[in-house]
Amino acid sequence: MSKQPIEFFFDFISPYGWFAAERIGALARSRGRSMAWHPILLGVTVRQEMGLPPLLETPLKGPYLAHDAPRSARFYGLPWRPPSPMTFSSVAAARAIIWAKAQGNIDTEALVLALYRRAWAEGQDIATPDAVAEVAASIGLDRAEVRAGLESPGVKEGLRTTVASAIKRGIFGSPFIIADGEPFWGSDRLGMVERWLDGGW
Amino acid sequence: MSKQPIEFFFDFISPYGWFAAERIGALARSRGRSMAWHPILLGVTVRQEMGLPPLLETPLKGPYLAHDAPRSARFYGLPWRPPSPMTFSSVAAARAIIWAKAQGNIDTEALVLALYRRAWAEGQDIATPDAVAEVAASIGLDRAEVRAGLESPGVKEGLRTTVASAIKRGIFGSPFIIADGEPFWGSDRLGMVERWLDGGW
Repeated sequence: MSKQPIEFFFDFISPYGWFAAERIGALARSRGRSMAWHPILLGVTVRQEMGLPPLLETPLKGPYLAHDAPRSARFYGLPWRPPSPMTFSSVAAARAIIWAKAQGNIDTEALVLALYRRAWAEGQDIATPDAVAEVAASIGLDRAEVRAGLESPGVKEGLRTTVASAIKRGIFGSPFIIADGEPFWGSDRLGMVERWLDGGW
Repeated sequence: MSKQPIEFFFDFISPYGWFAAERIGALARSRGRSMAWHPILLGVTVRQEMGLPPLLETPLKGPYLAHDAPRSARFYGLPWRPPSPMTFSSVAAARAIIWAKAQGNIDTEALVLALYRRAWAEGQDIATPDAVAEVAASIGLDRAEVRAGLESPGVKEGLRTTVASAIKRGIFGSPFIIADGEPFWGSDRLGMVERWLDGGW
């Protein structure tokens, strides 16, 4: 049996990314897999690469998603207190994940979930580097180290590379999962991911 | 317990509409519900109302969907032999459903499934009125009556009204389901529909 990590692509501005982030770690562990957390920026993939408007501004689909996201949170048993406005820059939060992965000894999943929950379960701002460092500190990381990491040229370049590489691999949404080379888009697809890891169909 | 029909909106050019069409009737019957089949035209909703390009022509998403549709067919245990080209005019097939519903004594679900299967399981053309009448004949309907119905001004107007009314209600994709007033988009959401009919969450 192959033991590749499960690759999880997500943007902190995407509540559907959060719904899946809350479950994918346990799914991976149940199949003896590790996780690879890849922050992406939908502003780059959706707007620049695909030429589409932001989801919430898309006629018909925007209002549907505004109704569906809180309903889906309830479906998954998650609290829902979205930030206002619901669109914000996720660059600092994404850089924090790049920084955390580079350290090698940080529980990246815990940081992903802490940031997601601060934004979508507590309705707090995670757009600024200070707010991101504060969330990191709340799970025991060194605030000053994180804050410095967010300004590091290597981290900034790391995020650019991560986003560009994701686009090159055809990733365009959040969440997006690659399991044993197979791509799955959407928080509704975890059941399929599970079956794929169990041998496919 | 409310006994509203389950409203099912779909376009014959959408294989995801097919994947859900194959299952929604049984789901409805298991909950003692009737079905209301509403053909829509994604060319109108997606292109005109939402201002988006056709899905298969959308960068990144197009290639993903081309990979995902056959894989999803296998997941649902359905044969996959798509028409070539995969985009075609679904107006005649949609009109056949409007016509069938107006007759009052026709098994609309059987006609929906026969048309869908002819296109996506057999790879045959269903774009012309003659091809549509042929499919109708294959399930015992009168070919000449169907053929005449497709040209009827009332049927044509009925389809226009159905599409316009769907857009007014916020429907934008295929499949799209309304269950007890609650909207659900996508073939992945039948589990949610089921839970909603069972009392929600």
